[in-house]
Amino acid sequence: MKKNLSLADYISGIKNKDLSILARAITLVESMNVQHRQLANELIKNILPLTGKARRVGISGTPGVGKSTFLENFGLDLINQNNSLAILAIDPTSQLTGGSILGDKTRMAKLSAHRNAFIRPSPNGKTLGGVAAKTREAMLLCDAFGFDYIFIETVGVGQSEISVSKVVDMFILLMQPGGGDELQGIKRGILEVSDLVIINKADGEHASLAKIAQHDYKKSLEVLQENRQWQTKVLRCSSLKKEGFKDIKKSIDTYFDQYDKSKRQAQFKSWIEDLLVEKFSYQLAKVSNFDEKVNAILAGKNDLLTSVDDIYKEVISYD
Amino acid sequence: MKKNLSLADYISGIKNKDLSILARAITLVESMNVQHRQLANELIKNILPLTGKARRVGISGTPGVGKSTFLENFGLDLINQNNSLAILAIDPTSQLTGGSILGDKTRMAKLSAHRNAFIRPSPNGKTLGGVAAKTREAMLLCDAFGFDYIFIETVGVGQSEISVSKVVDMFILLMQPGGGDELQGIKRGILEVSDLVIINKADGEHASLAKIAQHDYKKSLEVLQENRQWQTKVLRCSSLKKEGFKDIKKSIDTYFDQYDKSKRQAQFKSWIEDLLVEKFSYQLAKVSNFDEKVNAILAGKNDLLTSVDDIYKEVISYD
Repeated sequence: MKKNLSLADYISGIKNKDLSILARAITLVESMNVQHRQLANELIKNILPLTGKARRVGISGTPGVGKSTFLENFGLDLINQNNSLAILAIDPTSQLTGGSILGDKTRMAKLSAHRNAFIRPSPNGKTLGGVAAKTREAMLLCDAFGFDYIFIETVGVGQSEISVSKVVDMFILLMQPGGGDELQGIKRGILEVSDLVIINKADGEHASLAKIAQHDYKKSLEVLQENRQWQTKVLRCSSLKKEGFKDIKKSIDTYFDQYDKSKRQAQFKSWIEDLLVEKFSYQLAKVSNFDEKVNAILAGKNDLLTSVDDIYKEVISYD
Repeated sequence: MKKNLSLADYISGIKNKDLSILARAITLVESMNVQHRQLANELIKNILPLTGKARRVGISGTPGVGKSTFLENFGLDLINQNNSLAILAIDPTSQLTGGSILGDKTRMAKLSAHRNAFIRPSPNGKTLGGVAAKTREAMLLCDAFGFDYIFIETVGVGQSEISVSKVVDMFILLMQPGGGDELQGIKRGILEVSDLVIINKADGEHASLAKIAQHDYKKSLEVLQENRQWQTKVLRCSSLKKEGFKDIKKSIDTYFDQYDKSKRQAQFKSWIEDLLVEKFSYQLAKVSNFDEKVNAILAGKNDLLTSVDDIYKEVISYD
């Protein structure tokens, strides 16, 4: 059995770049246990002055788009250029199914074996906001540890990307050519917050399809990001053949050269507002006879504004 | 002083197409007085079986785009084709300033003089949801009255359009050529929910600019409405010269030929959900020391998830 670590143990472990202590510190902040939570709060408070140097990057893409191959090979490139990096995964499906399509260390065998890389699977948590909150604390621990890059990886199927985009400095979207990715609802929202779009698998038979996809996404971005100051680029790459990495690295560097870190505070505030509205919507979903109430208004039995007040009172009465 | 009307008076007045009774019925549903509210609920309950035949159309556009001229001349065209129509205005600026940039009967002198047209200015109300709720009841009264078309006019500057789009069957956006309309935030949201986009003032020196605007909005719609079943058209017209009305009428007719009225219930439910979230956000804005609370989390003094719970409890404690 492992010996319990004190606050001082955690702090000195992080300062001394002890990867096993970092891993245990992340386990600590993920814990729902009240005593762990208190220790975690103390730890975060103590390491906060050490944070702020890392480049915090969200990276999203649907399963099969090649995120693992990209992260492994692009990550190895970064390491060869004398950088260190951490990869944290958020996989909302793991909360639903108990299984996980992300966060498997064996996905990135070469990278995870490297001493300058740290790969951490998805935390378990009940709510999305909770998971993003825990990931934010894990990110702060990695930042204090001294990683140059922290990638937060999401699967691009839900609301988590929008939530993550408010925790990181830069958001990258990975796409594939001819994937039949329709630009609907949430996906449009993800594209809208992206700071760099990468068309992966731009090799072999996909090479010409990738050019078409690049053109289409450029056009979409012109509409979705009109009047944004940062010009989001759409770049092609082959993660397998390690082609196109240079331009990607350049776009990331340019982004961070211009990035104003004071944005982090406003972004954080907006994220907390989202968490609060999310919490309300979560409670709203518990109203069991919502349809009946709607029908009573539609049938003229109940007054709309009074009913809305009544439903509101019911929602806020829930634990 | 006008004699008080009974429930029976209101009902028979509406059944007998008495415009002055309709006007008083709308005043009744707009009232915040508790007794009026009770009578209004009874009235709505009684007239609901008479509703459902009208074409409910939202129409939006920024001030100066020519909504009045369009509604007057297009409205007269509809009347000449044996239709009757009601125009209800929602003007969020009137709640803020006490003045109103809409709802002035003199704007549409010829149309308002016609016995088959009914024009009603913006109701006074405190919250956006409240105004849309009152407008919905006024719409139901007009529907029961037997109007063929009900236009709900908004100024296109805020959230009200999105709210209105959930009360009507069809949403029309009026634009002008070269208006320098940037496609940001809320405006993109309005374009996204539009079922028909009209470039007004497509005459004289603006004719070629209108063609460019038409092309640009078509391209934007391809992105914003990809995979929507209904193909939103972008049409040009000159309200002043009464040109282009035929195609507009045709697009409206085609839309309603395909429209499934059972959508109204789902739309109504989603609208009520929005009203509830809107109410929560309104309460959230009352938290006076929100920034301090955010900073306390950022500084590591307070735990994020506990703080979110605490702020939530504070918000739901407000009246």
